[in-house]
Amino acid sequence: MRKKILVDMDGVLADVYAQFINFEYRDTGIKKDLEQLKGITEAEAFPLHHEHLNSQGFFGTAPLIEGSVEGLRYLNEKYDILIVSSATEFPSSLRDKYDWLQKYFPFITWKQMIFCGKKDSIKGDIMIDDHSKNLDFFEGRRILFTQPQNALLECDSYERVNSWHDIMDLL
Amino acid sequence: MRKKILVDMDGVLADVYAQFINFEYRDTGIKKDLEQLKGITEAEAFPLHHEHLNSQGFFGTAPLIEGSVEGLRYLNEKYDILIVSSATEFPSSLRDKYDWLQKYFPFITWKQMIFCGKKDSIKGDIMIDDHSKNLDFFEGRRILFTQPQNALLECDSYERVNSWHDIMDLL
Repeated sequence: MRKKILVDMDGVLADVYAQFINFEYRDTGIKKDLEQLKGITEAEAFPLHHEHLNSQGFFGTAPLIEGSVEGLRYLNEKYDILIVSSATEFPSSLRDKYDWLQKYFPFITWKQMIFCGKKDSIKGDIMIDDHSKNLDFFEGRRILFTQPQNALLECDSYERVNSWHDIMDLL
Repeated sequence: MRKKILVDMDGVLADVYAQFINFEYRDTGIKKDLEQLKGITEAEAFPLHHEHLNSQGFFGTAPLIEGSVEGLRYLNEKYDILIVSSATEFPSSLRDKYDWLQKYFPFITWKQMIFCGKKDSIKGDIMIDDHSKNLDFFEGRRILFTQPQNALLECDSYERVNSWHDIMDLL
């Protein structure tokens, strides 16, 4: 039986840091440098964070994480894939996220999508996520995808990957 | 520790049969009688079923199942409640369902919502659903909420309830 992998969207498929930087630059003229954001939360890094997450289009126009299309296609052929995304906190993101997945990952069907509030009730064998709060409640194998907010995290119970290239090497 | 109950929306909280009947009557002038729909699927009962499920507003204007507000409020005080709804097949339903929950069940937070394709990866202790296809993959206690499509189903592995009154008696 194929193993089931839960794949996060924001910070794993969608480059939300690039999007935060773009939206903040548009609204304030300040352009943040990724290197300066290591070890602080997204909310600390981007003062307009909450407003941008709530704005229509934020998720719908997010750029791709490099290598994610090729990487997810590879995983989808080898494993049972579920895309599990925190979305109900920002209801305008629901349709945006669906459309975004359809656009970039047309090989992912509606049967493989879960939009939720919390991820602690979703079953799987492997979870790939950039947020430790999601991995910490997961009973299977935990893969932490590096983003600035988790860059300084010690991770004894996670396997850290820095790219989709790393994921394809690992899985 | 409180038990976790997965509560279905369509056919348990939202009266989709009433909505199918209303939409079909609007579009065809034919008004179906619930009594004649026992034991046949929703798709068989309503020829425009798929078109209506895809139309904006179908889920957003669905009437409540009788007793569901009082019943869910009761459960929400006693158990951990997750609303688990098949939604990604009909993407316009995503926001409709969120707004509908907010309107009628404001005590349910975004943390308690899951909009998915399939329900077989959602963990819980008890599932309340009107579709056997969802209950059959569930490992916990299975409660079948009577609707015409399941009315003739023999249910050795389910507990059948005919109303929210029955649910409150049972749980």
